[in-house]
Amino acid sequence: MPPPDRGLQALRRSNEHEVVETLRVAGPLTRAQLAERVGLSRVTVSEISADLLSRSVLVLVDEAEAGHLSPPRATRGRPAKRLAVNPRAGQLVGIDFGHRRVHAVVVDAAHEVLASGARPYAADSDWVQRTDTLLELLDDLAGDGRVALAGLRAVSVGFPGPFSPRMPAPPPEGASADAETSSDYVRQRLGKRFDVPVLIDNNTRFAALAEAIWGSGAQTGDLVYVRLADGVGGGLVVQERLVTGSSGFAGELGHVSVRLDGPDCRCGKRGCLETIASVPAILARCAAEGAAVADLAELGRAVANDDPVVDRVLRDAGEALGRVLGTLAVALNPSEVVVGGELAKVAPALLAQAQATISWELLPMPEVAPTIRLAQLGDEDGALGAVAAVLHSSPLLASYPELTQPPAPATKRDAS
Amino acid sequence: MPPPDRGLQALRRSNEHEVVETLRVAGPLTRAQLAERVGLSRVTVSEISADLLSRSVLVLVDEAEAGHLSPPRATRGRPAKRLAVNPRAGQLVGIDFGHRRVHAVVVDAAHEVLASGARPYAADSDWVQRTDTLLELLDDLAGDGRVALAGLRAVSVGFPGPFSPRMPAPPPEGASADAETSSDYVRQRLGKRFDVPVLIDNNTRFAALAEAIWGSGAQTGDLVYVRLADGVGGGLVVQERLVTGSSGFAGELGHVSVRLDGPDCRCGKRGCLETIASVPAILARCAAEGAAVADLAELGRAVANDDPVVDRVLRDAGEALGRVLGTLAVALNPSEVVVGGELAKVAPALLAQAQATISWELLPMPEVAPTIRLAQLGDEDGALGAVAAVLHSSPLLASYPELTQPPAPATKRDAS
Repeated sequence: MPPPDRGLQALRRSNEHEVVETLRVAGPLTRAQLAERVGLSRVTVSEISADLLSRSVLVLVDEAEAGHLSPPRATRGRPAKRLAVNPRAGQLVGIDFGHRRVHAVVVDAAHEVLASGARPYAADSDWVQRTDTLLELLDDLAGDGRVALAGLRAVSVGFPGPFSPRMPAPPPEGASADAETSSDYVRQRLGKRFDVPVLIDNNTRFAALAEAIWGSGAQTGDLVYVRLADGVGGGLVVQERLVTGSSGFAGELGHVSVRLDGPDCRCGKRGCLETIASVPAILARCAAEGAAVADLAELGRAVANDDPVVDRVLRDAGEALGRVLGTLAVALNPSEVVVGGELAKVAPALLAQAQATISWELLPMPEVAPTIRLAQLGDEDGALGAVAAVLHSSPLLASYPELTQPPAPATKRDAS
Repeated sequence: MPPPDRGLQALRRSNEHEVVETLRVAGPLTRAQLAERVGLSRVTVSEISADLLSRSVLVLVDEAEAGHLSPPRATRGRPAKRLAVNPRAGQLVGIDFGHRRVHAVVVDAAHEVLASGARPYAADSDWVQRTDTLLELLDDLAGDGRVALAGLRAVSVGFPGPFSPRMPAPPPEGASADAETSSDYVRQRLGKRFDVPVLIDNNTRFAALAEAIWGSGAQTGDLVYVRLADGVGGGLVVQERLVTGSSGFAGELGHVSVRLDGPDCRCGKRGCLETIASVPAILARCAAEGAAVADLAELGRAVANDDPVVDRVLRDAGEALGRVLGTLAVALNPSEVVVGGELAKVAPALLAQAQATISWELLPMPEVAPTIRLAQLGDEDGALGAVAAVLHSSPLLASYPELTQPPAPATKRDAS
């Protein structure tokens, strides 16, 4: 059997949840009223509320402040202080370190996005410079009066993949001697600056989580996500949880070998999905077949002009993409398959062919018919997903259904 | 926010767990002693224990019976009755309906296998006959004095795939009018016979769960399982949970198309894994290439004689198998990839080639190095997994670590 204290910890978290939920529903209550409502002893309620007060999750309010929502008091005499949920507590910061810029969002305890923004850095900048840029961005966002960086509950950071939270990358140059890796360095600086827990994971995985929660009308419990960009990455959500894998590398869909006779891949294999369906792979293939396009904008113009070579290259890439996603659709039976990154938006033929290939793969299984769609969230997907991951990892908050509502409009501060 | 009663229900389950765990650790206690230990009010403890007593999870014991494990009482006078965990309560029955026989295991509350056995039926028998056969088998197993079918907690049934618990198959002939499907029919008859909840799911998926829990020394949180038999099925365990998929069809690995120019499949596609790596597919291919083998026993003899045609057919099937499993290994980063079914045991070349292909797929990702192994559990894998699924689906029992210990030796009753 488990050590008794583990069971008691779980019980305390559950009681804590009940205390916070009860105060949310009922408004401010005395400890005695709270004990009665939740069916716990007064001693237990006092212990739990002392802990929640010390963490600023709850605050004490006076009779006058409690307002008309508080139930009538049964006794006279000096009024007992009432416990209430702290409206300013528990802001979260979500961060996404891209290859060329960092995005950040600040979300409050009610899961409203208070502020968001981005700031660029050079693609070859190191993690010291990237972290400096992030801290400047956060100071800028804190200019919004509603953002309270002093009372954060957690900071959650998306790193570019391949990245495992359990096997982090080597340290950056210029980092302090005790920072073992880049992610340790970032964790240390953010931990020192804000004095809160810092969660770090793969940013594409975070984007998958954000699409599962906010990308379509309803929350999706089972989703396969792939992002086509300079590289190809992915993320899986299974039964409402982000899949990390046994060593933290789940979702590296760019390195599934889909054609044994395909182009050499930087990973050492051949014909990986990244060598066929990434942006550089498609531009290179178009050039090799005589339809030179320099970037996504030119590709978009060639698509608009019905360039037959570009169309063929895109359909071929869509077929390779559909093979990988189709295999995963049979194995995982997701309700949604989502393709992210600018490429798919610019090139509808790619998504159309992927859809056709996935549908063929699922033809004999009409019960397994996922929605196959473009990603709906913009550049903030990774940062939003970083926030969602914190909410999901906390038993206290994971069950709050506000999470399933789309984020409210944000105050934008683009400082590019 | 959730309706308050939902939160309270979760709280009650958690408190219930704590009450049962405390009694397991401490031995028999009075309600007052129990309230003190778990930090709940006496009223709450009385409510919870009344419910647990009515479900026979707990029993009342006298002073004398409580024995030396009970703590000393502080007061004199008429001794208060003490609460204790009922040692006879909570037996579970796991069932696996195969194509030609039904397996059953009976497990007690301490997760010891009390009895297990199998009984054959004709491959073309209907669900009325199959259920009759099962009930005969269970009556036979109940001959063991330790089996108490009258006090079962649940019955869990594995159906042959493709099967979704959410989209069951058509009704059997001879079923009662209100049985909408085969699984409804089985559920009704077992529910009527034992008056307990009946859980039904795919038997291959159950086998995957059993391999994850008991197949190797330690419980595996992330596992990809495939079974090569008359058909090819599979099951996935991700982050310690069985994957069902959004419509209940996850794990149908036999119908991943692995070779676009492969043989026609009964599902309507071509080159599905089942057309290459199932037992009938391999026997047919050996025959077509001039090395006729009638069954698995003959195949085994041909392997022992180093028949080069048979070896080539097996390696080719192993390569196809490895392609599918390799894709899933990149996407899911499991700690184990398990191949079940008699075929792999008879034909080591098949597993060896699959291992080589999976390892090649993972070559650039040394961090993602799953153990690739044969299934370790015997014919009872599906029935054991059926029991494990009940234990996993119950918040009251899911955290009992006895579950991670291999099942104790069983009383065998083979009635074939």
